Amino acid sequence: MKTNHCKIVDCTIRDGGLVNNWDFSVDFVQQLYAGLNEAGVDYMEIGYKNSPKLLKGAEEAGPWRFLNDDFLRKVIPQKGNTKLSALVDVGRVDENDILPRSESMLDLIRVACYSKDVDKALALVQTFHDRGYETTLNIMALSNVMENELLEAFELIKDSSVDVVYIVDSYGSLDHNDVKYLVEKFKTHLPNKRLGVHTHNNMQLAFSNTLVAAELGVELLDASVYGMGRAAGNCPTELLVAHLKGTKYNLRPVLGVLEQLMVPLREKEEWGYILPYMITGALDEHPRSAMALRSSSEKDNVVDFYDKLTTPEVNFDK
Amino acid sequence: MKTNHCKIVDCTIRDGGLVNNWDFSVDFVQQLYAGLNEAGVDYMEIGYKNSPKLLKGAEEAGPWRFLNDDFLRKVIPQKGNTKLSALVDVGRVDENDILPRSESMLDLIRVACYSKDVDKALALVQTFHDRGYETTLNIMALSNVMENELLEAFELIKDSSVDVVYIVDSYGSLDHNDVKYLVEKFKTHLPNKRLGVHTHNNMQLAFSNTLVAAELGVELLDASVYGMGRAAGNCPTELLVAHLKGTKYNLRPVLGVLEQLMVPLREKEEWGYILPYMITGALDEHPRSAMALRSSSEKDNVVDFYDKLTTPEVNFDK
Repeated sequence: MKTNHCKIVDCTIRDGGLVNNWDFSVDFVQQLYAGLNEAGVDYMEIGYKNSPKLLKGAEEAGPWRFLNDDFLRKVIPQKGNTKLSALVDVGRVDENDILPRSESMLDLIRVACYSKDVDKALALVQTFHDRGYETTLNIMALSNVMENELLEAFELIKDSSVDVVYIVDSYGSLDHNDVKYLVEKFKTHLPNKRLGVHTHNNMQLAFSNTLVAAELGVELLDASVYGMGRAAGNCPTELLVAHLKGTKYNLRPVLGVLEQLMVPLREKEEWGYILPYMITGALDEHPRSAMALRSSSEKDNVVDFYDKLTTPEVNFDK
Repeated sequence: MKTNHCKIVDCTIRDGGLVNNWDFSVDFVQQLYAGLNEAGVDYMEIGYKNSPKLLKGAEEAGPWRFLNDDFLRKVIPQKGNTKLSALVDVGRVDENDILPRSESMLDLIRVACYSKDVDKALALVQTFHDRGYETTLNIMALSNVMENELLEAFELIKDSSVDVVYIVDSYGSLDHNDVKYLVEKFKTHLPNKRLGVHTHNNMQLAFSNTLVAAELGVELLDASVYGMGRAAGNCPTELLVAHLKGTKYNLRPVLGVLEQLMVPLREKEEWGYILPYMITGALDEHPRSAMALRSSSEKDNVVDFYDKLTTPEVNFDK
């Protein structure tokens, strides 16, 4: 399998922050950056660059929820080869918060959106592109998008300035055939764009789906150390680093990060292959109902949960 | 993906027994059988049929370690559609212990061997075949077998009475390309035999590798509920049941088994995606060194473990 073209985007802090409300210490993030840099990981997504005033109820979140450039400069006073990335959501970012790249620690800004908001997302992409950043467009929940809508989105994307377009398996419901189908579709309709993939591990397919995409030419591979990410989590960075052939990656520093940071953290916080997330993945649904179940006293009542999700007439508060 | 040809062989008791020394209560096994039968699972491998006198140091093991026909008749007084299977190892089974199928609860006897013992394994297969059983030959550790040895084995197998030949990823080190390569090789050299696959989950590829094999025509798919099996464990039965399209399987009873039996058991016993097993998988090694580490006080010292396994001159007691 040829994967020399691939680059790993480690999303531990950004997607993992959805698990612990971004409660990572500065020391934790610094150690993670040092480990990823030593391992040869290409990008570290260090948080969200949304604006607190556009997102209510997030006052208690850690600083990685709303990255501040001055703060970031103190956290990573000297960058290595690992570039820094931040994610923004359509409607939640204040463009005035985005410095020119020459004045920021960030190299890459990624814009996440649902397919109906691709036009708005591409307007943001253009702004960030003009300020010197690398850009990606991450189209979420592809398993729930109808073909005609996707084709319309492609028309907008192909004439845009975006560098990389992401295939996002938000619900962890895709298998290798689905990934192959989507990659071929994106390649056909967006021949001038590089591609990325972001998977979720609801059905233990995040790593294998990422490998399938990589083999088909997808360049940017999202991952997180120990798979830390919302609900079932993501493709584990350590598996990509261990497995990608003919590349520059080094597993040992990632094992150091796992031993020092992630194994202890997993004792306190929950993510991964957990049955309610498996069920929402199998049913091609957002994991929010499963997350609510896991926060309740009935967290292991999976038969009842499955019955509710598969009985149309039940009014189930998701 | 067409998978109507597939049959699931649930190995929870047999392979899972390697985790807890076969310490499953009769009630547990009966509930598991009822659930698998209701779910439409095709086979349940209920243990080993080796002889205690040919395997020293196993005196403390539960009854599923050395199945007794009278005992089995009491445990499963009435079979449903789910057939019963047992595994034997070359050199550890007393042929006199194997009743004719007409007098036994077992339907299928599977013979596990390394490729060098295929001749001995096929002699056992012939005996069991003559006594009326369905038979399989499970060639272990394929990732460590040289091509010439495998080709010799194929010559013996193709003229034998064995029904199904298994591709076994003992170390959990194979990816989808390896599985595809092996399935195509087995199909080419054994056109008259049905195929099976047994995967391990060291690199979170057990389920996806099983799907890839199924899609290429492999018929018997080994799995275990919640993936319970030695070290990293196996392909989870619940994922196969949830995912195989156009088949007769029903997820709900498997969720019942998970809720009632497996989630509580996982609180006491350890298996799954655990870093030392990931490391032995990535290095294509038997997990025994990782199992020893997990039983020690250094169980999370993965950097030191990795250094030992990757430093040839270190004398490391596996």
